[in-house]
Amino acid sequence: MDNIEQGLKPHDRLAARLADDMDAVNTLIRTKMASEHAPRIPEVTAHLVGAGGKRLRPMLTLASAHLCGYTGAYHIHLAATVEFIHTATLLHDDVVDESAQRRGRPTANLLWDNTSSVLVGDYLFARSFQLMTECGSMEVMRILSNAAATIAEGEVLQLTAAQDLATDEAVYLQVVRGKTAALFSAAMEVGGVIADADAATVKALYDYGDALGVAFQIVDDLLDYQGQSEATGKNIGDDFRERKLTLPVIKAVTKATPDERAFWVRTIEKGKQDAGDLEHALALLNKHGTLAETRVDAIAWADRAKASLAPLADHDIKDMLVDLADFVVDRIS
Amino acid sequence: MDNIEQGLKPHDRLAARLADDMDAVNTLIRTKMASEHAPRIPEVTAHLVGAGGKRLRPMLTLASAHLCGYTGAYHIHLAATVEFIHTATLLHDDVVDESAQRRGRPTANLLWDNTSSVLVGDYLFARSFQLMTECGSMEVMRILSNAAATIAEGEVLQLTAAQDLATDEAVYLQVVRGKTAALFSAAMEVGGVIADADAATVKALYDYGDALGVAFQIVDDLLDYQGQSEATGKNIGDDFRERKLTLPVIKAVTKATPDERAFWVRTIEKGKQDAGDLEHALALLNKHGTLAETRVDAIAWADRAKASLAPLADHDIKDMLVDLADFVVDRIS
Repeated sequence: MDNIEQGLKPHDRLAARLADDMDAVNTLIRTKMASEHAPRIPEVTAHLVGAGGKRLRPMLTLASAHLCGYTGAYHIHLAATVEFIHTATLLHDDVVDESAQRRGRPTANLLWDNTSSVLVGDYLFARSFQLMTECGSMEVMRILSNAAATIAEGEVLQLTAAQDLATDEAVYLQVVRGKTAALFSAAMEVGGVIADADAATVKALYDYGDALGVAFQIVDDLLDYQGQSEATGKNIGDDFRERKLTLPVIKAVTKATPDERAFWVRTIEKGKQDAGDLEHALALLNKHGTLAETRVDAIAWADRAKASLAPLADHDIKDMLVDLADFVVDRIS
Repeated sequence: MDNIEQGLKPHDRLAARLADDMDAVNTLIRTKMASEHAPRIPEVTAHLVGAGGKRLRPMLTLASAHLCGYTGAYHIHLAATVEFIHTATLLHDDVVDESAQRRGRPTANLLWDNTSSVLVGDYLFARSFQLMTECGSMEVMRILSNAAATIAEGEVLQLTAAQDLATDEAVYLQVVRGKTAALFSAAMEVGGVIADADAATVKALYDYGDALGVAFQIVDDLLDYQGQSEATGKNIGDDFRERKLTLPVIKAVTKATPDERAFWVRTIEKGKQDAGDLEHALALLNKHGTLAETRVDAIAWADRAKASLAPLADHDIKDMLVDLADFVVDRIS
């Protein structure tokens, strides 16, 4: 418990606890993203790897495997697999969102082109399946291919749902499960499966990842309206400008007066935005208290994540995962 | 041999021989491309499925399994898997090429948008891995994930190689193996693997698919300069206009005078094309006889495909596959 005493954040404590494994994951990632024949591939991916990121998802797989007493070496492969799937979706998201910044640096599709983002994303996706094949577990293949399908389905659903004022909290949750929670839960689940954990434990790990992912995404969507640009690397109101219906707005739409509803129809559904519209949107969210309500929801999901782990035996990594759930919502406290 | 007597083309004879299986494949494709949550997915994919296509790749898997005496049901899954991978790459290719037509109909990215093409492609790709997981064969997973990585690598290589006059026939072959032959060979290989065929047979099936795929792509590239638009559904000179260095041009570049080289640098490397350039390019290909040379290469690859099958025992499907190799190059006879 040295790290706690040193006052490290939960994410950093997990990172310190898993440092050797994470070095192995990073080495494997660098090896597997190389391409003898297509030098553009390591150029694009090195750009992403160089940008760092928190490696949260692979860390979940490592943590889950250790928590279940795994002593083999395949958790490294699975952690790299999870990061490859994540990186592939980032590359494709950048094309979809026409993003100019990712992790505080220009996105690959601006530095190269959309084409490279699409094809290198495909390459990483294929590589992730090669990597998981090496583990030889059909159950792992099933979990991760299901997750990949859920991710893609969530992204497609978002295309139509995000600009449709009929989108309710249930549809929002489906999108969030797809775009974020599916990989969190799969990352946790495969760590347990590879360690031959019993079904109840694997279910608990899955539930933790699912709830953590939902909390994580709700926090992200909330910060888009109330965060600081320096802290998030994003600009306030990006989702509004990109006409993405997220939880604070969905809640505000259900409480809207006819005039307010007309405002949301114009700005989100029709995408006709003028100067001052973001400020007006923020005023409506504050008027109806939906930012505060969204915050309560995020904390409830974090609590659900912690509760999922309760049945598991004591373990220093279990404590860190519990703290991690708190930390995810700390950003909005 | 009724079908031969009826004078059907090899492709149609194979299709007739495998009709029941292919119906099952089509049913499975329709079932698996459905999405409860994201109606955009079946919209986009139904458009592609409705467009038909020859279903050549899944037919190879079915043929290969039958040739090896397979009596199970998983060849249906694998054939659908192969078609899903193919359709996913078509969707992404359309974004990459900014194509306006595919199979004689507007491409999905014109009817919807690039975003849908990228994300629905991802969905089909993930679905293909789910489908192959159902077969429970780790060797099949390995073959198809390797093929997927080779396809993506070939596509990325093409990005840089296609407009670089230094691209030689070896690099061209690498691109062709990636973009076309990798899926042909994998489609054949998994049919043998699922049937528990011996290693020599599986190798023969792989070699047939590889050589057939190379022949197929060389013919495609040749037809781009000498085909009829009605027969191919493409316009003469599309590759030239899109600055794609294919075999006839690669051969002409090696024989180019300094003036001719300057022409290729301007039109392909720099992409500065004027009226009359396509006609001049065609004149250079004819002057150096590279269309004829390319045709000879294609026929040699078709012969290699046929020779690969020679060691296998007699079988009506073996005869059809031999005829199919001839048929692929018949288009340029």
